[in-house]
Amino acid sequence: MGNTVRAILEQKGNQVVTVTCEDTLAQAILKLTQHKIGAVVVIDEEGALKGILSERDIVKYMAGKMEVPTSVQVCSIMTKSVTYVKLHQNLDECFHLMTTGRFRHLPVFDEGKLQGIISIGDVVKAALAERDFQIGQLEYYITNTF
Amino acid sequence: MGNTVRAILEQKGNQVVTVTCEDTLAQAILKLTQHKIGAVVVIDEEGALKGILSERDIVKYMAGKMEVPTSVQVCSIMTKSVTYVKLHQNLDECFHLMTTGRFRHLPVFDEGKLQGIISIGDVVKAALAERDFQIGQLEYYITNTF
Repeated sequence: MGNTVRAILEQKGNQVVTVTCEDTLAQAILKLTQHKIGAVVVIDEEGALKGILSERDIVKYMAGKMEVPTSVQVCSIMTKSVTYVKLHQNLDECFHLMTTGRFRHLPVFDEGKLQGIISIGDVVKAALAERDFQIGQLEYYITNTF
Repeated sequence: MGNTVRAILEQKGNQVVTVTCEDTLAQAILKLTQHKIGAVVVIDEEGALKGILSERDIVKYMAGKMEVPTSVQVCSIMTKSVTYVKLHQNLDECFHLMTTGRFRHLPVFDEGKLQGIISIGDVVKAALAERDFQIGQLEYYITNTF
């Protein structure tokens, strides 16, 4: 998959739903449900990448609790060691990172700011399209050679 | 994608993590985290399919709450109108159901019992493998014709 992250973002846009470390879980949940998404990216006031908060992080936080307070700050339950990619990286690298790390969202952080987010859906769509293009090329070659 | 659901389950196995309607959210969360999965299937004592409970259902249930009790029963927060497939259906149908319905897990219910579960990952893996096979065939054809 030779497509770069930059090319994918040019197609899908740069929108990323973000929260800050100091936001509450309740505020993060509101954003997840309003946007019908599975994760929000956590940044600070200067736009630096601080972490990611996914549905899975929230469910993990609930494990073993009788009552779950949603007033807790995002920073205390987010995944801090967030894996991200840069604009020049390609989809093969994204796919490898996602499957080995078992996560579905990959923030794009480059040139000092958050540039967008790549989801496993974006990668899959591109992978299928690339193969279909290749199949079309091969079929065209065969059809026009005989 | 001509592969049937039956063929996929023969490869990946029939394991499905289940809960009952009367189980608590706390019990369901324990199963999700222990098995590192995103959804559990809800069945009754006779094995009939009652619903599905995903990470997304749990986050939705939390929205707008200050304190979330995990003693609530699964039946009150699960998705009741669960879409499922039968063994003879193929992956194209699964993929279509998942993308239009925007869900990642498809229980397989047939012959009166839960036969397994198909994840979006299974479908994607099969779709990529099928195309790679097709590309290989075309390349073989070209190489051996000239």
